[in-house]
Amino acid sequence: MSEYFKGIKQIEYVGKESREQLAFHYYNPKEIIGGKSMQDHLRFSVAYWHTFTAEGRDMFGVESAQRAWNKYTDPLDKALARADAAFEFMSKLGVKYFCFHDRDLVDEQETLRETNKLLDKVVEHIKGKMKESGIKLLWGTANLFAHPRFMQGAATTCDADVYAYASAQVKKALEITKELNGENYVFWGGREGYETLLNTNMELELNNLAKFMHMAVEYAKEIGFTGQFLIEPKPKEPTKHQYDFDVANSYAFLQKYNLDKYFKFNIEANHATLAGHTFQHELRYARINNLLGSIDANMGDLLLGWDTDQFPTNVYENVFAMYEILKNGGIAPGGLNFDAHVRRPSYEDIDLFYAHIAGMDAFALGLKIAHKIIEDKVLEDFIEKRYNSFKEGIGKKIVEGTTNLKELEDYVIDKKVSLPKSGRQEYLENIINQYIF
Amino acid sequence: MSEYFKGIKQIEYVGKESREQLAFHYYNPKEIIGGKSMQDHLRFSVAYWHTFTAEGRDMFGVESAQRAWNKYTDPLDKALARADAAFEFMSKLGVKYFCFHDRDLVDEQETLRETNKLLDKVVEHIKGKMKESGIKLLWGTANLFAHPRFMQGAATTCDADVYAYASAQVKKALEITKELNGENYVFWGGREGYETLLNTNMELELNNLAKFMHMAVEYAKEIGFTGQFLIEPKPKEPTKHQYDFDVANSYAFLQKYNLDKYFKFNIEANHATLAGHTFQHELRYARINNLLGSIDANMGDLLLGWDTDQFPTNVYENVFAMYEILKNGGIAPGGLNFDAHVRRPSYEDIDLFYAHIAGMDAFALGLKIAHKIIEDKVLEDFIEKRYNSFKEGIGKKIVEGTTNLKELEDYVIDKKVSLPKSGRQEYLENIINQYIF
Amino acid sequence: MSEYFKGIKQIEYVGKESREQLAFHYYNPKEIIGGKSMQDHLRFSVAYWHTFTAEGRDMFGVESAQRAWNKYTDPLDKALARADAAFEFMSKLGVKYFCFHDRDLVDEQETLRETNKLLDKVVEHIKGKMKESGIKLLWGTANLFAHPRFMQGAATTCDADVYAYASAQVKKALEITKELNGENYVFWGGREGYETLLNTNMELELNNLAKFMHMAVEYAKEIGFTGQFLIEPKPKEPTKHQYDFDVANSYAFLQKYNLDKYFKFNIEANHATLAGHTFQHELRYARINNLLGSIDANMGDLLLGWDTDQFPTNVYENVFAMYEILKNGGIAPGGLNFDAHVRRPSYEDIDLFYAHIAGMDAFALGLKIAHKIIEDKVLEDFIEKRYNSFKEGIGKKIVEGTTNLKELEDYVIDKKVSLPKSGRQEYLENIINQYIF
Amino acid sequence: MSEYFKGIKQIEYVGKESREQLAFHYYNPKEIIGGKSMQDHLRFSVAYWHTFTAEGRDMFGVESAQRAWNKYTDPLDKALARADAAFEFMSKLGVKYFCFHDRDLVDEQETLRETNKLLDKVVEHIKGKMKESGIKLLWGTANLFAHPRFMQGAATTCDADVYAYASAQVKKALEITKELNGENYVFWGGREGYETLLNTNMELELNNLAKFMHMAVEYAKEIGFTGQFLIEPKPKEPTKHQYDFDVANSYAFLQKYNLDKYFKFNIEANHATLAGHTFQHELRYARINNLLGSIDANMGDLLLGWDTDQFPTNVYENVFAMYEILKNGGIAPGGLNFDAHVRRPSYEDIDLFYAHIAGMDAFALGLKIAHKIIEDKVLEDFIEKRYNSFKEGIGKKIVEGTTNLKELEDYVIDKKVSLPKSGRQEYLENIINQYIF
Ligand SMILES: [Co+2]
Ligand SMILES: [Co+2]
Ligand SMILES: [Co+2]
Ligand SMILES: [Co+2]
Ligand SMILES: [Co+2]
Ligand SMILES: [Co+2]
Ligand SMILES: [Co+2]
Ligand SMILES: [Co+2]
Repeated sequence: MSEYFKGIKQIEYVGKESREQLAFHYYNPKEIIGGKSMQDHLRFSVAYWHTFTAEGRDMFGVESAQRAWNKYTDPLDKALARADAAFEFMSKLGVKYFCFHDRDLVDEQETLRETNKLLDKVVEHIKGKMKESGIKLLWGTANLFAHPRFMQGAATTCDADVYAYASAQVKKALEITKELNGENYVFWGGREGYETLLNTNMELELNNLAKFMHMAVEYAKEIGFTGQFLIEPKPKEPTKHQYDFDVANSYAFLQKYNLDKYFKFNIEANHATLAGHTFQHELRYARINNLLGSIDANMGDLLLGWDTDQFPTNVYENVFAMYEILKNGGIAPGGLNFDAHVRRPSYEDIDLFYAHIAGMDAFALGLKIAHKIIEDKVLEDFIEKRYNSFKEGIGKKIVEGTTNLKELEDYVIDKKVSLPKSGRQEYLENIINQYIF
Repeated sequence: MSEYFKGIKQIEYVGKESREQLAFHYYNPKEIIGGKSMQDHLRFSVAYWHTFTAEGRDMFGVESAQRAWNKYTDPLDKALARADAAFEFMSKLGVKYFCFHDRDLVDEQETLRETNKLLDKVVEHIKGKMKESGIKLLWGTANLFAHPRFMQGAATTCDADVYAYASAQVKKALEITKELNGENYVFWGGREGYETLLNTNMELELNNLAKFMHMAVEYAKEIGFTGQFLIEPKPKEPTKHQYDFDVANSYAFLQKYNLDKYFKFNIEANHATLAGHTFQHELRYARINNLLGSIDANMGDLLLGWDTDQFPTNVYENVFAMYEILKNGGIAPGGLNFDAHVRRPSYEDIDLFYAHIAGMDAFALGLKIAHKIIEDKVLEDFIEKRYNSFKEGIGKKIVEGTTNLKELEDYVIDKKVSLPKSGRQEYLENIINQYIF
Repeated sequence: MSEYFKGIKQIEYVGKESREQLAFHYYNPKEIIGGKSMQDHLRFSVAYWHTFTAEGRDMFGVESAQRAWNKYTDPLDKALARADAAFEFMSKLGVKYFCFHDRDLVDEQETLRETNKLLDKVVEHIKGKMKESGIKLLWGTANLFAHPRFMQGAATTCDADVYAYASAQVKKALEITKELNGENYVFWGGREGYETLLNTNMELELNNLAKFMHMAVEYAKEIGFTGQFLIEPKPKEPTKHQYDFDVANSYAFLQKYNLDKYFKFNIEANHATLAGHTFQHELRYARINNLLGSIDANMGDLLLGWDTDQFPTNVYENVFAMYEILKNGGIAPGGLNFDAHVRRPSYEDIDLFYAHIAGMDAFALGLKIAHKIIEDKVLEDFIEKRYNSFKEGIGKKIVEGTTNLKELEDYVIDKKVSLPKSGRQEYLENIINQYIF
Repeated sequence: MSEYFKGIKQIEYVGKESREQLAFHYYNPKEIIGGKSMQDHLRFSVAYWHTFTAEGRDMFGVESAQRAWNKYTDPLDKALARADAAFEFMSKLGVKYFCFHDRDLVDEQETLRETNKLLDKVVEHIKGKMKESGIKLLWGTANLFAHPRFMQGAATTCDADVYAYASAQVKKALEITKELNGENYVFWGGREGYETLLNTNMELELNNLAKFMHMAVEYAKEIGFTGQFLIEPKPKEPTKHQYDFDVANSYAFLQKYNLDKYFKFNIEANHATLAGHTFQHELRYARINNLLGSIDANMGDLLLGWDTDQFPTNVYENVFAMYEILKNGGIAPGGLNFDAHVRRPSYEDIDLFYAHIAGMDAFALGLKIAHKIIEDKVLEDFIEKRYNSFKEGIGKKIVEGTTNLKELEDYVIDKKVSLPKSGRQEYLENIINQYIF
């Protein structure tokens, strides 16, 4: 078996002062933060598609990278080489989880039967790799967006055969996710939406989408797959409108179709911002509804209108994300999956290391700072006081639901109601800076 | 009683060819379209706040208009004059509905008791005007956003006294809406959201918001108000994040808190686009969920990031809106409320006429064109064919929910699945143009 | 030679009432509008890349279309077949111009010498086709963005060899544009910008870009190419920031580097909106600075943040575009190039016809309506009156530059300055609607 | 004279570890960074309008704050009280500069003559305050946007009288800026643009704008005002389109009208992002063109589409801003003016301190980190190497302008051009994080 990342040794923690760049400056996997190791807090995962399968194509240009492991003509040779490279990379990087779409592992063949046959061989190979390395599967999924048959949707297609094909892919993807002890299964509906309402039966499509998910839930029970089902919302791109627009939109869908007990959310930073929300907003909303499942850790460029999927190097964002995760009691069985790709000009293999290290260090900082903020109850104490009028008297009755409009009117009809306490946003932002720097 | 709009006569329908501008070219109230008069289809309403109360202030400049009816010092004098002007305007324009916030009618006084006393006098006056003119109340609402006490929310404030005050305002607004036979009651939560998550207990705020709405529903029952409750979603502005972000977000809220049987939506075009949706998308989504209640008819500028509330002169948008309304079987008991204000440089009284005429004519065109498109089943037939694979065989089983992943896999495992039919977007856009022009 | 578009006959004008869709309803090439044929007003052009070379790939999916003419393995066979298909398509459509990038015509080979050799053969073939069909070249350009060597810019690359390669491509592209009597030559700097300022010497890059353009101007003189040089601005995508952000930005560049006498602009609707401008704004700004050269006729989706390059079916936009073109005295030697591609689900060959027909009809409408608006001096008369205070007295002195702050102060120091005339935006929008419908 | 900020003492530097919040943790005015005190590097300025004149109004709500100094009925009383409060605030805060619009100082009166008379008294008072406190005027400007007469522009109005009035205001503003030894004079053209092109003569308006600026330049010469003239670009809001869209747009204007030798730019962070640029982009572009004059130090919310003018607490942004300023050799005679206002819920007087402290500390961090990055030549060395192919051979000829397309073609015609060096964005972002944290 060839070594793909020659000259690169195990990435080690070297501490803040070192200027060695193939090393961690903040991420120290075994370091204990609040009773748990950084590694267990963060549960980092590498995304098979961005790091091993794709090679830097964009809308205006062909692939900028040429990965040695992708150069094989025979699909199985390529798939196995790719898996070897993947496990070498993850081992050297010290990441303990990965995620994949079925089609990341091996190219699609003429028929589904042939594809599945090949897939089984690759899965077998990967199983060995996992055992050998101790690396685990965070989640699996099916790619229901790249093939032209899905151009008008998979579960929301206008074509029943395409729907059947997508269903069969999900069946197989569930099987291999189970086979590899995947801890979650994700639905990202990249083509589940519409290009134009002029040709769309939205009601039928949404009904079909709900049935698709119910069938998946049923089949999981049947085969004993007990991982968590996750929806990954995104508002648009490639589709003009995607049905799983954001967490709240999708929550409306789950409730309507009685799916809310089976699903949580895989929240991606860049998808949050494309939907007009901060990453923290989506995490918070999911958290308070007990829907926070897993995270696609990346960052977007808010001046650009597409999914740039950048490595998450903005520490502010990571502090706020880790704040929500810590308040959630952790992210397990989910994790932090780097659904991020190197910029097209960062085309060398070594950039894959630099990029993941940058993201891991920036999230390690996020964890440490968020932990300290929570430990010191900086925000908790402020918030406690801010709402304290709801702890007694009329406020308590409001919260408990034991009052009504008449009583409330009586309470204020002649009262001089004073202004609420100052929101102190700038004060709080300044304190956060003092924790960060 | 003074005449405010001197020299302006009743606005009449003059037909397409005339170049008279204080006249309708397309809106012919009694003209029958598909068995119903244009007037009954469109149910136009004037927004009290934009047209009679506000005077053209923006973030960087003071009022550009000086309305004669707002020049009184005594609050009651001003309120009565404003009502007189309003009914003169609506009568001359030939609009049969209006909408208001409590504070549009009369300025707030020292105590709620005093304000309500004054309000009663104005309502009494308006009641007479309504009787006299035959103009009706489409909906009422409470202004829970302008006063500084609401700077951090009303139903989602951090201060129990403020919550009580807001509740009392809603109580009174419900009473006067009932008194004036209002057909709907609207909640627009302009301050129900947050400026920063750093100081926010989102869970408590959302719980309180749900309780607020339940109390309103209870009180309506108590006083026998049988109008439709409506939520008007908006994603942001003035608040950084508003809880009623869009229709789907709010639908998630309604379902979670068992409010979905009491509420529908008042959908505003400009709010839809601020949330990243087309107006038609919001209407469609509401329609297929039986949630389409009423409409704030305006338009935004998609190159600007704030709520410009322009008069809806874009006929394309109006065609697609009327398409959804017609497919909904009409908009009643809702209507088309012009939540729109003249541009700040259109500061003359006569501009209020020009602007409403522009919006009414553009919606009349929308109605006529949409009706023709539906009558000819242009889109219906296309859509019917597009999805016809779901009418029999495996497609039928999918729709009926009588299949499963295994059967679907068997169906496609060796099948050569062909591509779905072309979506034909450009073809359809071209046909729509042929209907429009 | 095969016929590629079997069963499709010459697209003819059938008039407004017909429901035949492989026909023009508004575009009547020989119809005279204001003394010039529609064909000469509009100077439509087909974009080689979108219509003949590309096949519907997007960021999340592979090609949806499979064009018969692109199925050849041998590059020359493919190139010749593609040209045949192109001329068959344009002839049947009745479009008299086309545009290309060097690499649209034929695939790049191992060395530039080999590529150019092949290119010469294709150009020879195309020359014959042009003669035969009477179809002309609106403009040529070089593709300096798709190959990985350009990942960090072409004229603004960090690598001198890449710069040299780009220069050589421009040289050849100028030669073949001249050979084919191209009327313009376009620079679209899709990679001329930066991904991150962290690694960028902006000053050096801009200096190099200016030198690049000067060399092109010099070489054009040398070979006697007298077509118009055009810059096509775009703010971003694929690059994070593109130097030719918008017309005004690029005009600053041209002035600084003394290039303004050699260049005009090729303005694309979707690029305008990505830069935060209306299409009309960019056209107007260019027009009043005598910089309006040519047009990439398409439309964007303002709710999406990337270049959707849709066929321009929005008649409003086309009216305003044609208004500027008519006020410019026409667009020649530029034209209206459909830099637009069919939606990915519109993957059938016939959709190429439907889409171009939709764009052509919608622009024909734009022309007819804009012509009428100008003929009736609707806006001209209004504007004339609006600014009439600048025609005499102090206003005249201001315009003529014969006054100063002191005199102006004296003029107003004790004066009660009244408000300017109402801007009457809604009134004007309404009148425009009366012209459109 | 009353003390307005009772109980607040001089804000002192207490260092990173203290949790005292009415204190600086990073801003230590006399601390020397790279041979210059922090105070001299940063040249902080308080914005009179946001901090002393305005009181927290927004589009949907009235003032949330009630400043004691604004409670006077008599305009002069109010103006003097406001000035007293301003100088008390700035003294306690330790800021050495301020900026104002003419109308921030005192309310407009019936005639310009009366306003100017009052203004003279206030200026006299402020002059005394300045002398006493050592606080200086960074820049003055005229408010040509708030009064209704400017609703359709000031220098680009459709009304000559309005133009004259604006001119007279600029004359007076120049005089008082000179009187107070202002180091710069700013033009922010908030209404210089259009609401709709339908009623706009863009060419006339731009010509008039240029004449306006030339008259100001002339008058400055006449009275011996030697401060720097600055344009502050903003793309929109309140106007639909503002002519000074961004730095490059305005640079095109300055060049066209031969104004480029008299003007530099006052660059605001939030205006940069509204125009689709990063703050650093605008600073960099200005810097390399020797146009960087001064800074309006704030930050925007990129998920909101309006000018939020928040206090600049994002340290990343401040690092990149200070990087450009240091590379510029400093910002003098400009400074860092906090064109920022407290959030509406931060309505207490003490929030004015918290907010400015937050901004000052965050910029002090920016300075320290940027200085270290430059000192270590982290980016400089990388960039130097990245472009080193332009230092000799063909690259040198390119840079020197001594080659041409033919020579460049010869150079590459048979050459295998390799890919440029990796851009290493993630690697660089990671290193920047190591400097920041
Ligand atoms: Co993702
Ligand atoms: Co993404
Ligand atoms: Co509304
Ligand atoms: Co609105
Ligand atoms: Co283009
Ligand atoms: Co484009
Ligand atoms: Co500013
Ligand atoms: Co600002």
